[in-house]
Amino acid sequence: MTAEVVSVGTELLMGQTLDTHSSTLGRLLAEHGIACHRRTTVDDNLSRIEGVLREALERCDLVLTVGGLGPTADDLTRDAIAAALGEPLEPVPHIEMRLREYFASRGIDWNRAIARQALKPRGAETIDNPNGTAPGLHARKDGKTVVALPGPRGEFGPMVEGPLRAILESLAGGETIRSRTLRICGLGESQVEAALGEIMASEDPVVAPYAHPGEVHLRITARGASAEEAESVIEPVERQIREILGANVFGRDDQTLETVVLGLLRERSARVATAESLTGGGLSARLTGIPGASDVFAGGVVAYSAALKESLLGIDADVLQAESPVSEAVARAMAEGARSRLGAEYGLGLTGNAGPTADAGRKPVGQVWVACAGPGGTWATSHRFVGGREDVRTRAAQAALVLLRQMLLSEAER
Amino acid sequence: MTAEVVSVGTELLMGQTLDTHSSTLGRLLAEHGIACHRRTTVDDNLSRIEGVLREALERCDLVLTVGGLGPTADDLTRDAIAAALGEPLEPVPHIEMRLREYFASRGIDWNRAIARQALKPRGAETIDNPNGTAPGLHARKDGKTVVALPGPRGEFGPMVEGPLRAILESLAGGETIRSRTLRICGLGESQVEAALGEIMASEDPVVAPYAHPGEVHLRITARGASAEEAESVIEPVERQIREILGANVFGRDDQTLETVVLGLLRERSARVATAESLTGGGLSARLTGIPGASDVFAGGVVAYSAALKESLLGIDADVLQAESPVSEAVARAMAEGARSRLGAEYGLGLTGNAGPTADAGRKPVGQVWVACAGPGGTWATSHRFVGGREDVRTRAAQAALVLLRQMLLSEAER
Repeated sequence: MTAEVVSVGTELLMGQTLDTHSSTLGRLLAEHGIACHRRTTVDDNLSRIEGVLREALERCDLVLTVGGLGPTADDLTRDAIAAALGEPLEPVPHIEMRLREYFASRGIDWNRAIARQALKPRGAETIDNPNGTAPGLHARKDGKTVVALPGPRGEFGPMVEGPLRAILESLAGGETIRSRTLRICGLGESQVEAALGEIMASEDPVVAPYAHPGEVHLRITARGASAEEAESVIEPVERQIREILGANVFGRDDQTLETVVLGLLRERSARVATAESLTGGGLSARLTGIPGASDVFAGGVVAYSAALKESLLGIDADVLQAESPVSEAVARAMAEGARSRLGAEYGLGLTGNAGPTADAGRKPVGQVWVACAGPGGTWATSHRFVGGREDVRTRAAQAALVLLRQMLLSEAER
Repeated sequence: MTAEVVSVGTELLMGQTLDTHSSTLGRLLAEHGIACHRRTTVDDNLSRIEGVLREALERCDLVLTVGGLGPTADDLTRDAIAAALGEPLEPVPHIEMRLREYFASRGIDWNRAIARQALKPRGAETIDNPNGTAPGLHARKDGKTVVALPGPRGEFGPMVEGPLRAILESLAGGETIRSRTLRICGLGESQVEAALGEIMASEDPVVAPYAHPGEVHLRITARGASAEEAESVIEPVERQIREILGANVFGRDDQTLETVVLGLLRERSARVATAESLTGGGLSARLTGIPGASDVFAGGVVAYSAALKESLLGIDADVLQAESPVSEAVARAMAEGARSRLGAEYGLGLTGNAGPTADAGRKPVGQVWVACAGPGGTWATSHRFVGGREDVRTRAAQAALVLLRQMLLSEAER
């Protein structure tokens, strides 16, 4: 079973609108184990849309289109699908009735443009669109399937989550597809692959790795006659992976490192405070991006200068004079200062050179120290990150969260 | 002159990465008057990438590829371009030397995977990549052009702005295209359009609006036999727009609100400090995202609790008891506390409810106060932003920067 996504719209090609819908559909196809090798975006031109659809239908079993179903002159997807399938367009009485009522109630005269939305290629079915005027389309011919989805966000989302999911499950042979993502920190993609060995080659469930800054995500996908059956295929593999990777697995599905760390703090009724230099508030912004974070996030300080490190964090002037701002000693003192001055059980200190040039202390770009101070002492790690200023800052914040998580977990073990 | 964009990457098709680069390229092609009817995304499969390239080269004059130039086994774009053009790959000595030095300095052994990045199709040129290891490619054959760009953000952006722009101008038939973007704050897109009236309908130069959170960008594009000629078409229209919109135009081209504000501070040898609650460090992270910000960014404090507002910012306990945390009085006191405690000429205070639920003080989601304290007094504005937690936080930071800019400009007038 293979699929392609065709998104329609000159505004997409001109870069005026970002094509997020194709990404959404890509994730959904992957979840259903439907292979997708190609995605095409085409402008609002009838013969070109038709051409793209014909080519796609030759290569694969299922084509999902997005956009071009509305009433304006540049909404041509419906006509192009009919042409590509070699079927005439015909009116759908119940849709037409609904549209007539809708527009009459708004004092808008019925016209040809509106009426086009009540047409469908012969043999196709319409998909109800409770959030807009143009219905979706679901056409099958010669073993091929075309599903046309509307572009507006409020119409696209619900049609994908409801009717499209049902169509995909039925196409996947009545089978139910379930997938689970394990989130891993502290190991690179190749280390994860090496550690898991043959598990990565498993065909049922399929295990696929995805690298993110400072994280690896492993998606485990299985199919079965029922949700329980699919879950029962995933479960032993998930257990095996967790046994091999241990505490490197920090979360599942949508759990981010910050939600996991905030959750661990909440369980312990403990709070964290931050002292940042190179990340400039990025770590605290990330933690406070999570609703309810203020329960366990005490506060933060952004301090580049020695003066502020002394006044806000109470760091010893001797340390600041003797040591480079990018050093283990300063990272530790920042973490300890955040902990004591901001009144939290845990303090994180981050210092480093985010670039673009080597700093006054001649530390190379990407050199970072993070420290975590807790009731049992202070830990510190040094890093040398590759990449631009944003990359280095993101990875430094990630490293600080990893260190805090390690400390919280190690304390639970004792 | 027609072009197509080909983005390469299984992660794009699976919806794990959003394809923003294709949008960027779409805007650039449009600016240069190069028609783009189709964009394709293809997975990391050599024969499929080659197939997509062959098809695209048959339909159009210029193919831009993104991604797949790196060292790993799934980076196949270089090989696919060579195959589609029917040219062998050959090593580029100066690139190889650069890579050898780069990896040796990092203690990484030279290997075949790394070496592949120093290859190019015969007859092609490499495009220097000062921000990464893999160079870009610029190949011409039989009247067709292929330009291959790297996927990582920090490498893609500079290669597009420099070398790709130069290539597009030379391809645009010797005609020079110039465009300028005016960045506007304090007005919505429809207000801008209404204020500019007929200017928006201009055909030479073309004026196109783009809405961003808290900003509107107006792109003015003109073509001419020379850069001077194109500039001379843009200039009177830019002047007209600036006259109508006044100080709402805050910047040009790549100038962000934070770079503009940092620049105004630098001119005045003044510094700013921040006191944030709802934005949780997002404003300081944004300011410090700009290289060199630490010259004029004194530091920041993230304080949700009354205790920290008192201890770190020196806010009067009476104010904190009498007033809701989301109030004009608290925003003002935070701004003034940041200014005095962090030793800066200007202090910004931000408080509000970012959601998702109404806070303890019963302030509705989106209610925000921002204040700016300076040598001449303290200003405050209240806002009611629509959207999710991230939207509200982004717009609050934006509002604080707008307020600081207003204060800095008004002081210059006096």
